[in-house]
Formats: sequence, C-alpha cells, structure tokens
Amino acid sequence: MKIKSALEFSHELLSETVNTGDTVVDCTMGNGHDTLFLTDLVGKKGTVYGFDIQGEAVENTKALLKSNHVQTKNVYLYNISHAKVDEILPYETMISGAIFNLGYLPGGDKTIVTYPETTIAAIKGCLNHLCHNGVVVVVAYYGHPGGEREKNTVLEFGSQLDQKQYSVLKYSFLNQKHFPPILMAIQRID
Amino acid sequence: MKIKSALEFSHELLSETVNTGDTVVDCTMGNGHDTLFLTDLVGKKGTVYGFDIQGEAVENTKALLKSNHVQTKNVYLYNISHAKVDEILPYETMISGAIFNLGYLPGGDKTIVTYPETTIAAIKGCLNHLCHNGVVVVVAYYGHPGGEREKNTVLEFGSQLDQKQYSVLKYSFLNQKHFPPILMAIQRID
Repeated sequence: MKIKSALEFSHELLSETVNTGDTVVDCTMGNGHDTLFLTDLVGKKGTVYGFDIQGEAVENTKALLKSNHVQTKNVYLYNISHAKVDEILPYETMISGAIFNLGYLPGGDKTIVTYPETTIAAIKGCLNHLCHNGVVVVVAYYGHPGGEREKNTVLEFGSQLDQKQYSVLKYSFLNQKHFPPILMAIQRID
Repeated sequence: MKIKSALEFSHELLSETVNTGDTVVDCTMGNGHDTLFLTDLVGKKGTVYGFDIQGEAVENTKALLKSNHVQTKNVYLYNISHAKVDEILPYETMISGAIFNLGYLPGGDKTIVTYPETTIAAIKGCLNHLCHNGVVVVVAYYGHPGGEREKNTVLEFGSQLDQKQYSVLKYSFLNQKHFPPILMAIQRID
C-alpha cells in the first residue's frame, strides 16, 4: 500500500477523531469534497459548518451535497471568510474536527487564495471551540505565490502552541520537487 | 483518539505494507519489541532478520521471542552492526519492510549509540533489497549527545533520494520540548 498523501492522511486523522453526532467545520469548502466527507463522518445527527470566501465554492459544495443526497438540515454553509468562524459558531458549541485546505480553489481563479493572517485567525477561532482530543487539520498547498509564506506562518504558529494544551503534528514529504501539500494537525490534549 | 506517536505510526506503516510470508529486517533489535512485532506481521512462513551491536540486545530479544512462544525457525538474529545488512541478506532476497530505532538501548548503556555513518550504510543496505511499495522506517531518538547530528544526517539522506524511485515521508511533532522521536519512512515506488 502506498504511504498516504497529506490529503488522504487528513481524512484518516478526522475519521479517527470525529464521531457520529459531532459538530465539525470545513474552513475552506472549495469544491465541497471535504464538506461531503464531514457530513458522512458526523451523520444525520451531526452538524457541519462550512466557510468559503468565494460564492462559486459555496455553490459547488451545495451541488455536490445535493448530488450525493446529503440531508442538509444541519449543514450550514457561509459565503464569508473563515476568519469569522469564532463569531459564527454558537458560543458554547464544541467541535471535534476542523479542516483547512490552503491555497486556491482547484479549477477556479488562481489569484484568489487564502492568506496567513486570516488563516491564523480562523485556526485560533477553531481552537476556541475544540473539544478534548479534537483535531484541527491544515493541508497547505504552497506552490503558488505567497504559498510558502503562508505555510511557514502556519507551521510557526503550530510550533508555538503550549505542549500542555496541544500536540502538533507535521506530516510532509521530503524529496518531492513539485510542492506536494504538507499537513499540520493540532490536537487538543488538555 | 490520540494522534499516533512516531513509534505507533511506525507500526501502522509496517502493518499496511508487510504481508504474511514476507521477509523483513529489524536493524536495531534493542529489547526486541519491534522484532516481536515483525514476527507477528510475517507469520510462520515469513522471515525476520535482526541486527544489534550489543550482545545484551540479542539476548533480550531472544528472551522476548521465547516468552511469547514465537517459532524462531525463520528468525535470524545477528550480534553485528546493521551496516552489514547488505552482506548478510542473501543477494536476491527482497524485503517489504525494515525498522530502525536510532539512539541507545533503553535501559542499557547510554554511551553505546547508533552513529550516522553506519546508520546510513544500513539504510542503503536495506534499500538494495527493498521491493516495490516496501518501506524502510526510521524512528530517531535524538535527545542524547550526537543524536541531533544523526537525525539531521538521516533526514538529509532521505531528502536527496530520487523522487522517481522513492517517496520519503517525515512525521514529527512541532511543539514538544523534550525531543520526542521523529519518524522518516522511505517507500520504494519504482
């Protein structure tokens, strides 16, 4: 079996952490693949929040959920920046998982990308709601202009987190020339 | 569920790659825990080679296998440097997995450690016998004198491998102060 890519490993981590009925967040809906995956993990009794700054992404996600016959009663999709996640989530709501795919919308406008400042604000927002053993998983594509800076900012943020509160994993491929995505996962351990 | 430690993840990778009947190598027997794990993965029809420069490690491993009632007909334990792995393995023998735990023998003499030069020689020896999709997994403890240099040498070696032949994963924790082990896995993909 092939060693899992960062994307495949992000799903493994979420599968091991998120249970039926949980609340989870997709901070970068993109074409909706992770949102769909999350609705499957939490099931009908769970709740999924999705964020994307591009209307096209929200529409793509809605269409994907519809074509997969997902009951969207507890699926809340927002066409706003993920930096607002802390404001949007009800104050006492705890989440067991969140996923970020940093970069641009695959197949979309490559000049519209995620940025370090809003990404860090969004990660912090998710951490404010993260339950014990919950994970925030960041998959960073960084071959585009500004991608390297964003990746480094995210890794630096993770490196600084208190080890009594969080365990921060980095999963990356060392010998690849074409910027395969790296993964960082923050698990709450306190 | 907790995110797997480097040690736990080394076992996950080997479990996903090694099949019953395969030939595998434990390049640092230590107290025998990985050797025991490998005998379980390959079963009675498989073959396990073990290496350790310390007689104490070989004895500990033999005792552990015995107390776990492992049939040792196809288990070959050598009290020599893992740098000799390429000489010891029959020329045409292909392996699907190899494991290294770099550092000193837990509970043993802390001044007897693995060294970069022999470690790299041993990794190269394993690569010479690695089958398609096979993995060489290195777990590096590096809190001891010289450990940092050994870790860096191993990572540098992995970074230089041809991406057409090998996929090289690094799995590490970013925010831990007390040198938790890092993992590097080399998978043959050609």
